[in-house]
Amino acid sequence: MIKAIEWTKNKLFLIDQTKLPGKLSRFECKTAQQVADAIAGMKVRGAPAIGVAAAFGVYLGVRRPPLAKTFEQLESQVAKLCALLGKTRPTAVNLFWALDRMKRCTVNNRDHKLATLRDILLREALNIYREDEKVTKAIAAQGAELMRDGDTIMTHCNAGALATAGVGTALGVVVEASRKHKGIKALVGETRPRLQGARLTAWELKQAHVPFHLITDNMAAYFMKKGDINVVIVGADRIAMNGDVANKIGTYGLAMLAYHHNIPFYVAAPVSTFDRSLASGDSIPIEERSPLEVTHVNERPISIAGVKALNPAFDVTPHRFISAIITELGVVRAPFDQNLKNLFANLV
Amino acid sequence: MIKAIEWTKNKLFLIDQTKLPGKLSRFECKTAQQVADAIAGMKVRGAPAIGVAAAFGVYLGVRRPPLAKTFEQLESQVAKLCALLGKTRPTAVNLFWALDRMKRCTVNNRDHKLATLRDILLREALNIYREDEKVTKAIAAQGAELMRDGDTIMTHCNAGALATAGVGTALGVVVEASRKHKGIKALVGETRPRLQGARLTAWELKQAHVPFHLITDNMAAYFMKKGDINVVIVGADRIAMNGDVANKIGTYGLAMLAYHHNIPFYVAAPVSTFDRSLASGDSIPIEERSPLEVTHVNERPISIAGVKALNPAFDVTPHRFISAIITELGVVRAPFDQNLKNLFANLV
Repeated sequence: MIKAIEWTKNKLFLIDQTKLPGKLSRFECKTAQQVADAIAGMKVRGAPAIGVAAAFGVYLGVRRPPLAKTFEQLESQVAKLCALLGKTRPTAVNLFWALDRMKRCTVNNRDHKLATLRDILLREALNIYREDEKVTKAIAAQGAELMRDGDTIMTHCNAGALATAGVGTALGVVVEASRKHKGIKALVGETRPRLQGARLTAWELKQAHVPFHLITDNMAAYFMKKGDINVVIVGADRIAMNGDVANKIGTYGLAMLAYHHNIPFYVAAPVSTFDRSLASGDSIPIEERSPLEVTHVNERPISIAGVKALNPAFDVTPHRFISAIITELGVVRAPFDQNLKNLFANLV
Repeated sequence: MIKAIEWTKNKLFLIDQTKLPGKLSRFECKTAQQVADAIAGMKVRGAPAIGVAAAFGVYLGVRRPPLAKTFEQLESQVAKLCALLGKTRPTAVNLFWALDRMKRCTVNNRDHKLATLRDILLREALNIYREDEKVTKAIAAQGAELMRDGDTIMTHCNAGALATAGVGTALGVVVEASRKHKGIKALVGETRPRLQGARLTAWELKQAHVPFHLITDNMAAYFMKKGDINVVIVGADRIAMNGDVANKIGTYGLAMLAYHHNIPFYVAAPVSTFDRSLASGDSIPIEERSPLEVTHVNERPISIAGVKALNPAFDVTPHRFISAIITELGVVRAPFDQNLKNLFANLV
């Protein structure tokens, strides 16, 4: 399985996902700034992967000379690094969740020597990494239980190994389902504007030997009406406590269409994707990215010169269109507000 | 206004729409085969424009030596030309409607000398052309009445001057609405896979000085939910007698989304787009085009090598999602079956 993020010999390596599938190139991030740039430029993307990369980014920052000489200096350094890394992308909450863990880890270990504390911060980043490996494996196993022999599973964007530290969320479910059941096929929406479906999900599914077809995003309704899609599954960038889900642009339309075609619509996401401060999805910030992503494909224009374009990178799907949310702790169904409250009541 | 089709000095000229917006190049079609190739290759596209081009194609065929020497030879020649031109694209019914007119014109004028009959066939092609100019103007005027000051009108694909012999259907309405009302804006879906929205509609709207934004197709639901779309209007390739509408892939999903957001969804089409032999849209043939249109943009791959893709070029929107069909004879609303019966009862 491909690893989007690698920590080896005390160095952080990322795959440059903007170059996939044409070229599989790994590069080292030596500084927090480089990690921030990689996140903002979508060289590393996917909510869980962003969180993991940012955690390593904090460690890269604190270990870089000039080293902090007092705890207060270190704490202020961590705060600045978190601010730098946190301003890269506003929607996925896993980023802020991971940065908060790094901040909390700093404070909780204030009594250690600074050198030890820095090592502890590395260990925390590695914990976040390894937890994500376990968590995504658990999600894949639970999600696969919901699929049946012969299902054609539609997915949107890329919520695979490239989007996490482990096997992926939604795509992890698809791959695990194809191991567990007979005749599983996938239908991959290309996911304009950045084409993560065409570029990344297609690439992962081929490696996993899952048969699939690529379609343009606007074909989904046609295949739903034909009865060619049995289930839709996507990842998530932020989930509110009523079950509203922010995810890649196009998810909301897809969910509404699935709902009205009586097709189950699943969201697969780790607990770190829930924003416990939000009662509903209405106030999730939606990142607006460069219009060039819409007006160009492969760096070549697809429209007239000077055309104005809009580019919201995410949308929010109201919980009523969602059949279930698959987490590492279990499958949550409506009423989401009550069932999510119960789920989190068992956590500290 | 741009003319997609020109008949001048006894020659047929088409704009090569596959080269737009990069290059505005006209080329002469000298033979019926060249017209057929232009239709199949989408150098000329749009249901009404295809019909007009095919009618000229029949005339180009009959005037080309060796000339028919008897009426029977001419009739058989026309039948063969219609077969050649008719097999180019299966979904848009205007093509068959125009070819039927040419066949009927041949039979109805069997008593003329062959040279005169050939001239009559040219006149019939010109009639089809000029009627389309009038008809699209009437549609634009009636459709504009349905719009209000400040409306943001979303459209899909290209149903403009490039798709007809006149001002266009859906896009003719948008342009006329922006002349008639204050503050009209358009939202243009790029329309994968062939990007007619990004390439052609954007190009036409700029020339018509209608302000607009380009979006990817999967963003429509997001803007509907935000309240940023007041009305959606599209053209049509074939309409059944119950009001079911075949149109560019993506239309069905857009219509269903508009319906559930309480946004009016209009179809603008000439009477020649109705298939009076079809009680419902279920049996409209849907053209499957090359997967390369999905897997490539600007002739460059967007996915992995050897990826399998599906490419239905059209879909069928059930009439219940359609607010009204705007024709040159009036605006038709539900119950469509009864109201369409009434509309056609007044025609011969």
